[in-house]
Amino acid sequence: MNFKSISSLLFLGLSTLTLSACDFNNNVESNTQVQPKNIIMVVADGMGPAYPTAFRYYHDDPGTPLVERTIFDQILVGSASTYPASESGYISTSDASGAALASGVKKNNFFVTDSAASATALAAGIKTYNGAIGIDQQKQAHLTVLEWAKSIGKTTGIAVTSQIVHATPASYIAKNEKRGNYNAIADNYFDLKIDGKFKADVMLGGGTKYFIREDRNLKDEFVAAGYQYIDKFSQLSTLDSNKQVLGLFADVALPSALDSDNKNRLRTLTQTAIKQLENDNGFFLLVEASQVDWGGHSNDIAYAMGEMNDLSTTMEYLKDYVKHNPNTLVVLTADHNTGGFSIGSNGVYEWQPHFIQLLKKSPNKIANLLATNEITDQHLTELLGFTISEEEILQFNVIKLEQTLAARQQKLNANEAKIALTKRYYDAIKNIIDIRTHSGWTSGGHTGIDVPVYAIGQGKEQFYGFQDNIEIAEKLFKLMGKE
Amino acid sequence: MNFKSISSLLFLGLSTLTLSACDFNNNVESNTQVQPKNIIMVVADGMGPAYPTAFRYYHDDPGTPLVERTIFDQILVGSASTYPASESGYISTSDASGAALASGVKKNNFFVTDSAASATALAAGIKTYNGAIGIDQQKQAHLTVLEWAKSIGKTTGIAVTSQIVHATPASYIAKNEKRGNYNAIADNYFDLKIDGKFKADVMLGGGTKYFIREDRNLKDEFVAAGYQYIDKFSQLSTLDSNKQVLGLFADVALPSALDSDNKNRLRTLTQTAIKQLENDNGFFLLVEASQVDWGGHSNDIAYAMGEMNDLSTTMEYLKDYVKHNPNTLVVLTADHNTGGFSIGSNGVYEWQPHFIQLLKKSPNKIANLLATNEITDQHLTELLGFTISEEEILQFNVIKLEQTLAARQQKLNANEAKIALTKRYYDAIKNIIDIRTHSGWTSGGHTGIDVPVYAIGQGKEQFYGFQDNIEIAEKLFKLMGKE
Repeated sequence: MNFKSISSLLFLGLSTLTLSACDFNNNVESNTQVQPKNIIMVVADGMGPAYPTAFRYYHDDPGTPLVERTIFDQILVGSASTYPASESGYISTSDASGAALASGVKKNNFFVTDSAASATALAAGIKTYNGAIGIDQQKQAHLTVLEWAKSIGKTTGIAVTSQIVHATPASYIAKNEKRGNYNAIADNYFDLKIDGKFKADVMLGGGTKYFIREDRNLKDEFVAAGYQYIDKFSQLSTLDSNKQVLGLFADVALPSALDSDNKNRLRTLTQTAIKQLENDNGFFLLVEASQVDWGGHSNDIAYAMGEMNDLSTTMEYLKDYVKHNPNTLVVLTADHNTGGFSIGSNGVYEWQPHFIQLLKKSPNKIANLLATNEITDQHLTELLGFTISEEEILQFNVIKLEQTLAARQQKLNANEAKIALTKRYYDAIKNIIDIRTHSGWTSGGHTGIDVPVYAIGQGKEQFYGFQDNIEIAEKLFKLMGKE
Repeated sequence: MNFKSISSLLFLGLSTLTLSACDFNNNVESNTQVQPKNIIMVVADGMGPAYPTAFRYYHDDPGTPLVERTIFDQILVGSASTYPASESGYISTSDASGAALASGVKKNNFFVTDSAASATALAAGIKTYNGAIGIDQQKQAHLTVLEWAKSIGKTTGIAVTSQIVHATPASYIAKNEKRGNYNAIADNYFDLKIDGKFKADVMLGGGTKYFIREDRNLKDEFVAAGYQYIDKFSQLSTLDSNKQVLGLFADVALPSALDSDNKNRLRTLTQTAIKQLENDNGFFLLVEASQVDWGGHSNDIAYAMGEMNDLSTTMEYLKDYVKHNPNTLVVLTADHNTGGFSIGSNGVYEWQPHFIQLLKKSPNKIANLLATNEITDQHLTELLGFTISEEEILQFNVIKLEQTLAARQQKLNANEAKIALTKRYYDAIKNIIDIRTHSGWTSGGHTGIDVPVYAIGQGKEQFYGFQDNIEIAEKLFKLMGKE
């Protein structure tokens, strides 16, 4: 079955969900194994194994002979495969390989997942097609670990740095055949309920535009239903801990860690979410470091390391939380790898992350600043934090002239011209950083390498060794008493 | 300290080794933990985590909905960092980054290892510079786990698919400041002894040219000292199990798995080595899947998968061996990653390994055959196993004409012209396979990602989670009673 024929099937999501919910309260006590009171699932989107390795070297103290261990090194337990359902890919009819495929390959299993299929695997324990949110290849909705937690009386929440309706958080709450249907997914957050209750008591992240729309104001609906609504980080400390909360801090996604006033914004959201969720029955919290993936897609190692740093402090906090709340389980994994990033490239046996540490602004911010200022050696050197070479300066001058010409030829207005110039500068800056650090990339998309699995606290031994991503959901279900 | 100043230091290897040997027999009984009778250390050279992941998909049965687990999935326990000593790199004085380095970086720690430094880490538990065999940055020789095993009365051996004096096996036996000194390393195999005994009772692999030389015939010396010598695989079954053995089956390295009559040559060597080594006191065996690395260096995924297949059957055999000999520990890891290989590339969310399975010959062999034959659509399609496109055929025709011209212009003789043509064809075939499979590469060298760690049998739990490569040696020393 190929992708197009799947799309034409009837979407049975809602009715099936009601069916699935019938067995929510069965078998809760039949499992005799350990059942952690609180479960915190952390997904680092796009964080294939090269990123935590790189973060160790980025984070290294050059004054000591050995490299310091990171929080990731302290809590590694295994790895996970991430491939989507076998019919996720497609065979192009114009592909010259048709004959070989017809003779040798019965199915269409191409092994590289998107964030929707992998988040659905992590949330619901099923293999599905790329793009699916909480549903399988037949468009059947499946129960997720967050929904199960709610059904057994736990509080539930999500804390993410993307829009809260992005693929990963959406897969724990919504049911949709296409990840890009953000408005419909936002509607699901209000409309789909578990035993008459909202699925998530705490929702922190970005995405105002999907909740406050012309056709529907979900913010007002949540407030009318008793939620407190905030849209500034400064309000996080003023929340009433007895009320549910919707916090949307950006129109779409939060700014990157490097571009945020709060470099540890994910830790802040996570701390607040936990404070709001704590109760005698325990809680389930999904945390997503959403933007490691976006650093990977942009082939921007500085961006990715900024996100890894925020994730690192979040995990340090969670390790400490488990120390004081030992009946808590924290699991961290990635949904897939992004970018084909490598530590070293082009035959050079070196990776020099200090060039990333020296940057005074993010590459994207530097590109923006350059596009509105005259370029000088001194200016660039100040922004980059290292002495720029004459050749590198010349590259920027060439780009400026080329884009001046292109803007005239294409009759771009001032704003369009600036956007085009910024993009070229951004590419040039990333290129300089890749050359200086010896970072390599093979893709602007995802790749299929297994991802690391980390765990802290009660039940962590369940995650030792190799597992498929659907088994992570299966183990969490079991740890919450569902056979 | 930079590489050049290290190289100028006096080589103190031999005298220091004698010193180190003084404490060989101390503390053997002071460790109360489990001590496996037999230890088999397997090093898959260059096998970063993308290779076992890729092998799972390469190995998948397309007739089943989920992907089958490999032997690697069954025995994964953790991962290891591979960075070399902090002074391994070098600062080029012409590097434009000089100013930044002077202000921000105190040491020269560039995190990407070669096979000598990493093998010395795995063998002796020390960080050293790239290129060092069994010695540290001050050229001090260090005791290895193989030497320790011999000193406590175990039999010892090596079974590899490279020349037996290549970096990995050499680091367990020899002491040299440069990995490329193959003749000196071969001399070490005869000359350096532990308590008067040869270090390795069984040596199987390639490298005849380093042992049978004009200036010295080490083969004859080993035979005179009581070793049996063989140079054909067919002789492996005829060995006297009561005599030590030197088996050299190629002038330098063994042919690749794809180009070998015996596709499971490493398993054959491993089985033979174990049979020869078994005794009441136990044995230590180093096995190396030497050529995964060479597939990576060549950016030849078919080559690498062929080597992974041989390693896979070797590990299946070892798992079965442990089942029948539970007082055995098997540890498998890589010394580093090679090639920056990625599963998927250029934004495409697919990896199509069936194109590798369809190949009738190795890419290198196909290139060789093409260089001695007329190119036809049918001929190429037969060799590749899939229908070649007209554009791909044209590429080969262009290469042929270009090389015909180049051979005339450069006055190449027939042999030189064929070598140059073969190389161009080889690159073209690899490019076709990369495009068809969506394989990506960032380097012809090594990269710094952490490598997977696998273990079977007694003491395997020692290797759970994250560890640095020097800790693998430390754990093996401890498991053999050395504190």
